[in-house]
Amino acid sequence: MTMTASVEELAADAHDGETRKVRKGERTRERILEAALALFARQGFAGATMRDIAAEAGCSLGLAYRYFSRKEDMVLALYDRLAQELSDEADRLPKSKLAERWAAIEIADLERLAPHRDALAALFGAGLSPDAPTQVLGGATAEIRDRVRGVFARVVNGASDAPKREQSAEITTLFYAAHLSLVLFYLQDRTHNQKATRDLIAFGREILALLRPALGLPMVSRYLSRLADIFMPLFGPPETGTFGEIPTKP
Amino acid sequence: MTMTASVEELAADAHDGETRKVRKGERTRERILEAALALFARQGFAGATMRDIAAEAGCSLGLAYRYFSRKEDMVLALYDRLAQELSDEADRLPKSKLAERWAAIEIADLERLAPHRDALAALFGAGLSPDAPTQVLGGATAEIRDRVRGVFARVVNGASDAPKREQSAEITTLFYAAHLSLVLFYLQDRTHNQKATRDLIAFGREILALLRPALGLPMVSRYLSRLADIFMPLFGPPETGTFGEIPTKP
Repeated sequence: MTMTASVEELAADAHDGETRKVRKGERTRERILEAALALFARQGFAGATMRDIAAEAGCSLGLAYRYFSRKEDMVLALYDRLAQELSDEADRLPKSKLAERWAAIEIADLERLAPHRDALAALFGAGLSPDAPTQVLGGATAEIRDRVRGVFARVVNGASDAPKREQSAEITTLFYAAHLSLVLFYLQDRTHNQKATRDLIAFGREILALLRPALGLPMVSRYLSRLADIFMPLFGPPETGTFGEIPTKP
Repeated sequence: MTMTASVEELAADAHDGETRKVRKGERTRERILEAALALFARQGFAGATMRDIAAEAGCSLGLAYRYFSRKEDMVLALYDRLAQELSDEADRLPKSKLAERWAAIEIADLERLAPHRDALAALFGAGLSPDAPTQVLGGATAEIRDRVRGVFARVVNGASDAPKREQSAEITTLFYAAHLSLVLFYLQDRTHNQKATRDLIAFGREILALLRPALGLPMVSRYLSRLADIFMPLFGPPETGTFGEIPTKP
């Protein structure tokens, strides 16, 4: 830049500086998050302090607090990132049959979760305790959960053999419940390379392909509706559920 | 007792003294355990110290340590008691049909768990973290888990329409997997009086009654075997599983 730089040039330079600063900020945030996940995997969620995390990331405690005011926010950031990756994955699915799309997204999810397996396992305490702000089925995660439900709605509706609208919503609820159950099974699965989880997905794909033509039968359709209704308060869209409701303690 | 008491009388008295001491010890142990469960429910597992627990039980810290060397042992004592109660419940089941027996034991289990719901929810962190000694599917709980599996074997084999031996073992594995899933669902279920969990059990009973006659069909029987094989490493008897194997960390 010379002394005779135009206003436009000055503005463009300032903008580049801002962008660079944002990028640098994102990189720092990412580095702190990665350090936190590595520590959670090694020491558990309760066992890692903000001070440990800052040390692991090679930054000051003050800087760590600037990006994450609590450890719980790091867990929410991880959930958020995993939800975004799952959503991107759904966009890449071919318009194949329902059973194929379901299996494809779940297999892709295993591959994505693999580097975070130890951290996620350590977080399940925080994720399933009813009072934790990071609770998987709690109030603070409602927005993320709604997005993940939305991903499964796209998996169902984008299938070449997608069912009718009302049944699609029911199958979305069941897919979402199955997804959270699969993640839990995967975290507990100590077979080599999590073979049991992979076999379970293959099994699910076959059963889905087998049952898809039966979804039109009144009896099957009635049972499906009933099961979806039972799961609705836990896995349905926010307005139907007990999501927002933080349990009160005496 | 007089100065002329016989050797037998002396021995009997000493024995009564011993019995009284054992009973008093059991009562103290029970009181400490109850105090611990109340605290876990209020403050979470990590938030309750041995000192808090002793104070809640109205005893010295030393006495609390005499009965439980670690908080984790209190969790194992709770698992142990719940397993024993489930076993007693199975003994009381009438020789009715498989579907009825399954639903009856699960409904009875909900009633038994109700007073411990908050404590159990707080313990799920400890129960599902892969390195915790109290891990539900870990090495230290293998003996308790084997007993609970045994309870479901009796639920299946004692049915008036019990399937053949090999299929019984498969159904036992599936019942045990379903049981742990139901407990998890129950702990997350915030519908009034856990209505969703009750509806799920009623649904399961109907599906079981509907499918029981189909268990003899080769295709159904093959799918059942495959599913049981997939669950075997996580929910099967100890010798088939990965139970004893404590995960090693780098």
